[in-house]
Amino acid sequence: MQNLKNAPIGIFDSGIGGLTVAKAVIEALPNEDIIYFGDTARVPYGIKSEETIRTYALQITNFLLKKKVKMILIACNTVSASAKEEIIRAAGDIPVLDVISAGSRNAVSLPNHRHVGVIGTLATVNSNAYPEAIHAFDPTIKISQQACPLLVPLAEEGWIDNEVAKQTLHYYLDEFDESGIQSLILGCTHYPLFKEVIPKVLKNGNIEIIDSAESIAASAKTKLEELDLLNQTGGDFQCFVSDRPQRFHELAERFLGKSLNGVEVVNLD
Amino acid sequence: MQNLKNAPIGIFDSGIGGLTVAKAVIEALPNEDIIYFGDTARVPYGIKSEETIRTYALQITNFLLKKKVKMILIACNTVSASAKEEIIRAAGDIPVLDVISAGSRNAVSLPNHRHVGVIGTLATVNSNAYPEAIHAFDPTIKISQQACPLLVPLAEEGWIDNEVAKQTLHYYLDEFDESGIQSLILGCTHYPLFKEVIPKVLKNGNIEIIDSAESIAASAKTKLEELDLLNQTGGDFQCFVSDRPQRFHELAERFLGKSLNGVEVVNLD
Repeated sequence: MQNLKNAPIGIFDSGIGGLTVAKAVIEALPNEDIIYFGDTARVPYGIKSEETIRTYALQITNFLLKKKVKMILIACNTVSASAKEEIIRAAGDIPVLDVISAGSRNAVSLPNHRHVGVIGTLATVNSNAYPEAIHAFDPTIKISQQACPLLVPLAEEGWIDNEVAKQTLHYYLDEFDESGIQSLILGCTHYPLFKEVIPKVLKNGNIEIIDSAESIAASAKTKLEELDLLNQTGGDFQCFVSDRPQRFHELAERFLGKSLNGVEVVNLD
Repeated sequence: MQNLKNAPIGIFDSGIGGLTVAKAVIEALPNEDIIYFGDTARVPYGIKSEETIRTYALQITNFLLKKKVKMILIACNTVSASAKEEIIRAAGDIPVLDVISAGSRNAVSLPNHRHVGVIGTLATVNSNAYPEAIHAFDPTIKISQQACPLLVPLAEEGWIDNEVAKQTLHYYLDEFDESGIQSLILGCTHYPLFKEVIPKVLKNGNIEIIDSAESIAASAKTKLEELDLLNQTGGDFQCFVSDRPQRFHELAERFLGKSLNGVEVVNLD
């Protein structure tokens, strides 16, 4: 088993947003090797058909399996909603975790929380994936959703706590303050960048923020412990992308929270 | 020639932004039939390679040529910057106009204007296409550029004159106020939606706003007059897209400024 313990964890997303998941995994599991794949040439997935999303997700899964990963983390809400079953089948014995299940499980585990708020992209909100995942755990929980289309471009512009960011969050979240939600799931991999500013904008100071990136990192740690697959000797981070878009490095480092060396471009088509 | 006079004008863009060009053409030439193509399945073009952009642009050009258009308007800044020559070659005798040339020609035609400001997407600004086009007319004109990545998502969210829009414009444009620009080219097909609010944000009230959509509509009218190809009996608008994304109708009508009937989805792959 020594060999499998030392194998890397594979994490993927349609773009760079999933680097917030990589960041959370590095913090929770600093001795693991990580391979990240961001499909920067084909982002965004949210506007594509389910069939296309499944095709892309399976190409990335196969790429990670060839890299001999011991676990796959789906760090993309769109893929989690549309292609999770196909990825689990393709991965065989390799465990697969996804951000939607992890965030939803975290939300229902909070004691006495009966009303959950979810924010995400238009595609994620319209897919109803969070309400379905939460209701699979507990069908009696009330759920309120709000699409926040501007948060992704704001995060990519680096405007995460200026007046524009705060004003935008007020437009999207002020109704949540009145609605009585007790927790708020950040249902998009870009949103952890707003984790500091959101509590400043919400008038109700008791709303618990649920960061899907931290949730999936915690689930990954628990799963590796269960399977006795924790690595004690790693800590490498390798980043693969399908294209190197403008400002990639600046953006990637903002999401990962540290500097990024040796990014490799691979074509999966 | 009667037949050619009655032929439609073809307009295309990577998405729905080019509907602002269609709107300007309808206003300038209300008796023309128009065929619009928006490549909504493959938007955005700005992050794609030049080779891919050329391939897509030629597919659309061929689609329009099969529709027997008498003129092609490239309503996409990215395509104008990367594929104009290829489209002109493919179009043969059919005249081809593009937003960058039209806006640039308009800017240099203003008397005593020596310093032009250009705002656009990151891809358009980095391509340097506006400075090159303006300097081809007059190499002595000073040009200042500013990328405004958030304006496209703001326009698509419909936030074109709220506090977030104004605050965002201040972040992007306040330096222009100090720089001494005399005119400001709206170098993205989404930006005409901010034409009313931009003068309210600029402290220098003498800056002339140059709307590339209106510029290309005026150029189209002049060209059709020259060629004696003006239609007196048309006025139809047909819209083709490669995918019908979420909120398409709401968005499209905001950009076109009127209701939209019978949108047809076609696959060019």
